[in-house]
Amino acid sequence: MVQGKINEIHGWAAMKPGIKVEPFTYKPRAIGDTDVEIKIDYSGICGSDLHTIKEEWGGTMYPAIVGHEIIGKVITKGPKVTHLKEGDLVGVGAQVHACLENSCNACSRNLDPHCPKGVLTYNSKYPDGEQAQGGYAEAVRVDANYAFKIPEAIDPVHAAPLMCAGTTVFAPMLRKGVKKGDRVGVIGIGGLGHLAIQYAHALGAEVIAFSHSPDKREQCMELGATKFVNTGIKEDVEKAKRSLDYLFVTSNSKSNQYNEFISWVDYEGQIVLLAVPEGHMQFSPFDFISSEVAITGSLIGGINIIKKTLEFAAKHNIRPIIEKYPLDQVNEALERMDAGKARYRIVLTH
Amino acid sequence: MVQGKINEIHGWAAMKPGIKVEPFTYKPRAIGDTDVEIKIDYSGICGSDLHTIKEEWGGTMYPAIVGHEIIGKVITKGPKVTHLKEGDLVGVGAQVHACLENSCNACSRNLDPHCPKGVLTYNSKYPDGEQAQGGYAEAVRVDANYAFKIPEAIDPVHAAPLMCAGTTVFAPMLRKGVKKGDRVGVIGIGGLGHLAIQYAHALGAEVIAFSHSPDKREQCMELGATKFVNTGIKEDVEKAKRSLDYLFVTSNSKSNQYNEFISWVDYEGQIVLLAVPEGHMQFSPFDFISSEVAITGSLIGGINIIKKTLEFAAKHNIRPIIEKYPLDQVNEALERMDAGKARYRIVLTH
Repeated sequence: MVQGKINEIHGWAAMKPGIKVEPFTYKPRAIGDTDVEIKIDYSGICGSDLHTIKEEWGGTMYPAIVGHEIIGKVITKGPKVTHLKEGDLVGVGAQVHACLENSCNACSRNLDPHCPKGVLTYNSKYPDGEQAQGGYAEAVRVDANYAFKIPEAIDPVHAAPLMCAGTTVFAPMLRKGVKKGDRVGVIGIGGLGHLAIQYAHALGAEVIAFSHSPDKREQCMELGATKFVNTGIKEDVEKAKRSLDYLFVTSNSKSNQYNEFISWVDYEGQIVLLAVPEGHMQFSPFDFISSEVAITGSLIGGINIIKKTLEFAAKHNIRPIIEKYPLDQVNEALERMDAGKARYRIVLTH
Repeated sequence: MVQGKINEIHGWAAMKPGIKVEPFTYKPRAIGDTDVEIKIDYSGICGSDLHTIKEEWGGTMYPAIVGHEIIGKVITKGPKVTHLKEGDLVGVGAQVHACLENSCNACSRNLDPHCPKGVLTYNSKYPDGEQAQGGYAEAVRVDANYAFKIPEAIDPVHAAPLMCAGTTVFAPMLRKGVKKGDRVGVIGIGGLGHLAIQYAHALGAEVIAFSHSPDKREQCMELGATKFVNTGIKEDVEKAKRSLDYLFVTSNSKSNQYNEFISWVDYEGQIVLLAVPEGHMQFSPFDFISSEVAITGSLIGGINIIKKTLEFAAKHNIRPIIEKYPLDQVNEALERMDAGKARYRIVLTH
């Protein structure tokens, strides 16, 4: 076993439900043979961070240090880590461990996010019972398989939102095989949506952005959209009927919107949920069945997908639009994010 | 324009909502250049017939002659019909007309069931306003493109349920590419389900039948299932978790069953709805998104799919299990079907 460099990690934890984190120190888990210790430079703020500290998804284990868009440098590595060395710039996303064994029904099929022994970056426990704590902190220790080298072409601060937001939008595009000429709708132009436009555009798709904020039109076109539908204008929405092969839902949709979403998608097209809707999914089965549209969700990307997300972003110059906040102003940043004011992703600088 | 042989068609029509049809005579539409007139020998009873006469789906146009699993002989053909001749044994399914023009967004992509000018076999109107009437009658006149030659290997009475039930289950298997080794679940062992087992088995899939009627176990195994899950036994259902690549829902499911259905399907698997659930589709988005299961529906098959359904059934000896009723006992047959007692499909003999 190797000794870590930072044996008491100072971070910012939520102590109870609400939009408030406060200084908190924890003793990190031992560095295993295949683990690395990372000194954190940047941490993106994800919508999941807010849902977790507010306990909107239930079951938050307080104190909870959230943050799963982590960029930092390897400062210690376990003896069996071969693909990383001290000083390497790496990113960590929403997962920090999986068994990765051939006998695992999930890992053996590149479905490591579904590994029964998988550990998420925060609000999750290792099989031995220790709690994982996230990126709003000076350091983190993770399974080295979940520490990804950041391509040199990408500015580290821009890499942070790619670790979760970027991967989340690109994963289903890879799985579904979005390709040149496909008509891809993106609803919700925010942290996820502004990256979805870029990834789909770089794949050669015709991208249609849907938003109720007409002031985002120009930005969407700059990011690669070929069309902007103002969802506040009924006639524009009418024209969108059956116009899409895919619709990526990145906004916090309401259950009563699904019949409308289904109407935008062409026969046999697909709706992919990237954000969890409020309440139950609910829609009329008649319109749904007769359209032969498929609805599916996408969780996070596994190891293979995260690597591809970073490579593809480096190659096609896909970059998030960010606002930077120093880590000690994390509470202001969280408030801004919660109010929907961030354009489009906030990165904490450590 | 050619003169038809039967210029007053005697049939059995629902006159108002309920499970009752009565003798009714109508004057059929003129036989167009590309139409055929068919003397009906057999007509299968489909669940849609019951939903329509009971007006459970709303908007039934009374008097309504239902029936869209029609087998009969061509007795008259329009001058431009080249692929059929008088005396040919043909089947008609749930659709009797589409524009089939290259300029049509649906027809040009083999999506003729979605043709804006499409006409269903009953409870539907031609673009000129005339109402289509279905198969519980002595004859029917349809677009010859929707009259399909029945392969000689198939007994005509067995061909009837293939026109709708068979096509409905095989269409999504073709579209999704169900193949050898896939794990295919079928829930609801009835008119659709007992055919779904046979089609999936003939495609080389491992078929798992789900039913709350343990007395159907043996029958399912004979039809090609390799496993039977009694949904009334909690432990058996538990074991089914993440065990399927596809789940075909052929029963009239309830909205609260979807979380359970999702739990049976493996990550990235698919649920295909072949029957319209009561009320709204409703399920928890969390389980759904994290499973990455897709939910889709399937309507009816177009021309290409109906042809393949018949060919495949002929080749692989797929046959419905039927009960025969003379047409003049149609009311008893409808009552039996409505009570869920039919094993598994009823065919009216004319």
